[in-house]
Amino acid sequence: MRGPRYNPGMTAVFGHLNPDTDAITAALVYANLLRRQGLDATPYRLGELNFETAFVLREAGVDAPELLTSLPEGSAVALVDHNESAQSLPGLKGLNVTHVVDHHRLGDLETTQPATLRFDPVGCTATILLRLHLEANLPVEPLDARLMLSAVLSDTLHFRSPTTTAADREAVAFLAQVAGVQDVTAYALAMFAAKSDLGDTPASTLLKMDYKVFPFGAQKWGVGVIETTNPAYVFGRQAELLAAMQAEKGVSGLDGLVLSVVDILNETNRTIVTGESEAAVLGEAFAAVTVDHVADLGDRISRKKQIVPTLEAYFAR
Amino acid sequence: MRGPRYNPGMTAVFGHLNPDTDAITAALVYANLLRRQGLDATPYRLGELNFETAFVLREAGVDAPELLTSLPEGSAVALVDHNESAQSLPGLKGLNVTHVVDHHRLGDLETTQPATLRFDPVGCTATILLRLHLEANLPVEPLDARLMLSAVLSDTLHFRSPTTTAADREAVAFLAQVAGVQDVTAYALAMFAAKSDLGDTPASTLLKMDYKVFPFGAQKWGVGVIETTNPAYVFGRQAELLAAMQAEKGVSGLDGLVLSVVDILNETNRTIVTGESEAAVLGEAFAAVTVDHVADLGDRISRKKQIVPTLEAYFAR
Repeated sequence: MRGPRYNPGMTAVFGHLNPDTDAITAALVYANLLRRQGLDATPYRLGELNFETAFVLREAGVDAPELLTSLPEGSAVALVDHNESAQSLPGLKGLNVTHVVDHHRLGDLETTQPATLRFDPVGCTATILLRLHLEANLPVEPLDARLMLSAVLSDTLHFRSPTTTAADREAVAFLAQVAGVQDVTAYALAMFAAKSDLGDTPASTLLKMDYKVFPFGAQKWGVGVIETTNPAYVFGRQAELLAAMQAEKGVSGLDGLVLSVVDILNETNRTIVTGESEAAVLGEAFAAVTVDHVADLGDRISRKKQIVPTLEAYFAR
Repeated sequence: MRGPRYNPGMTAVFGHLNPDTDAITAALVYANLLRRQGLDATPYRLGELNFETAFVLREAGVDAPELLTSLPEGSAVALVDHNESAQSLPGLKGLNVTHVVDHHRLGDLETTQPATLRFDPVGCTATILLRLHLEANLPVEPLDARLMLSAVLSDTLHFRSPTTTAADREAVAFLAQVAGVQDVTAYALAMFAAKSDLGDTPASTLLKMDYKVFPFGAQKWGVGVIETTNPAYVFGRQAELLAAMQAEKGVSGLDGLVLSVVDILNETNRTIVTGESEAAVLGEAFAAVTVDHVADLGDRISRKKQIVPTLEAYFAR
């Protein structure tokens, strides 16, 4: 572990709250790229590693970045894999955002000064990070290649997600070679198995593993996702999860809270809804039928591309 | 002139209201780059050309892009050299922003979908557009080089502005070669002379030639700039300009309105203030003394880097 000392001239690089593999590896890789370009940059994480990310770092022999919970007002920060304040470090509006690399829609971000912003509509932040290396004529270090490869496989569910672009496929081919990963399919399956090995993780942790809060018009919704090769395990704990969802909805004053259980291998999404009101919204927005708190969302497996835009459009009506 | 026909599958590319040379040439060059990359893109302008830009296009033998005043809701647009709705096409919030290339701070822009955003903290949009060509391994066409060269010279006042970066200087060296412009200094002086040849332009037009509206906290201010090699001419028309400013302030419901007269060659800024309240703000924010409606802002010649940030900080107190 790197020391947690805070250096005021430093730029803190971090991905979103409830980090996934892309958020963690992007912080590591972008901080390294910025350092190679002469900036004093340090990677951080805004939450606990999920099992997939822990597997990726362990296999790569890389320590997790330090946990970051706050920064002094005015600190320089580089955001990766997110840009909305609701998904970022508390107090983001008082920080000095100097860099952003992201592949999500642009939300409520503002900068006080001209900044370096790079958004491309691709499946993964790592795909953009690879471009930044190539554009700067900087050779990709094998360790960074391995981290970026893992991120693309994770975010695109090894090309199963509709967010996948040609650039993501090309990135995987290039990065696998640099990283020396011979069997990409086997590596992706090992990542997904690690992610699905949820053991006795508390239900409240499962809910928050890949969880984001979105403003939909005047409403505030939480949308969690569990991507798994073993949905039966998750639905075996549905009662516990429902209780955790009801508690979270109350504590955080949400108007809606849903948890999409995505079967990675079969590419289906069965979403646990907290109550009647969420079932009604999903019924109208997706024509989804809800039975026993589970709404069948068919093959809509991408929160970013298929779930959130539809809910946004629904609440904008 | 290209035909003004509107094609629903087309992406409209445009710079800010009250366009300057960077806004106009960036629309032309980025539209051409997007077309070379397979997108159906058309350049537009959101207002009349200033004398400098008219000179640049005339010398290059290029027609001005069509004037655009509105687009159907949901139309795809690419913004260059701006991102804030107050400086853009009316109704921007209802349009589909798919691309942005800009060198200003990020303001109130949001996108409904992941988009292609490229912001770099350099002196000119053209410097970023040159990078986009080089990164895409696309040769820069000589006409585009001439337009981009003109934009960098204009935005940086041929490197006099503190917004100038090493990348802008390198861009000028590269672009002058591709464009076949041998004597860059002579070309820049000819541009600035054309800009300063204001003839019998109405005072209301002079005020709006390079004019932007900014939200400062709860207030709304207009900040105009006249960059000229002949400030004596402008101050010879101070009474007319003041009358135009007072009228504009009332009509547009502004809280403040100032007009910076920048002496390009001597690098000084004497700013005409509409009234007492503006004089008081400039006095506190810049320690500037105002005599007969003219505040001496010394060598602060950059609205973006020196005027607006200081006013923003002042109103944020």
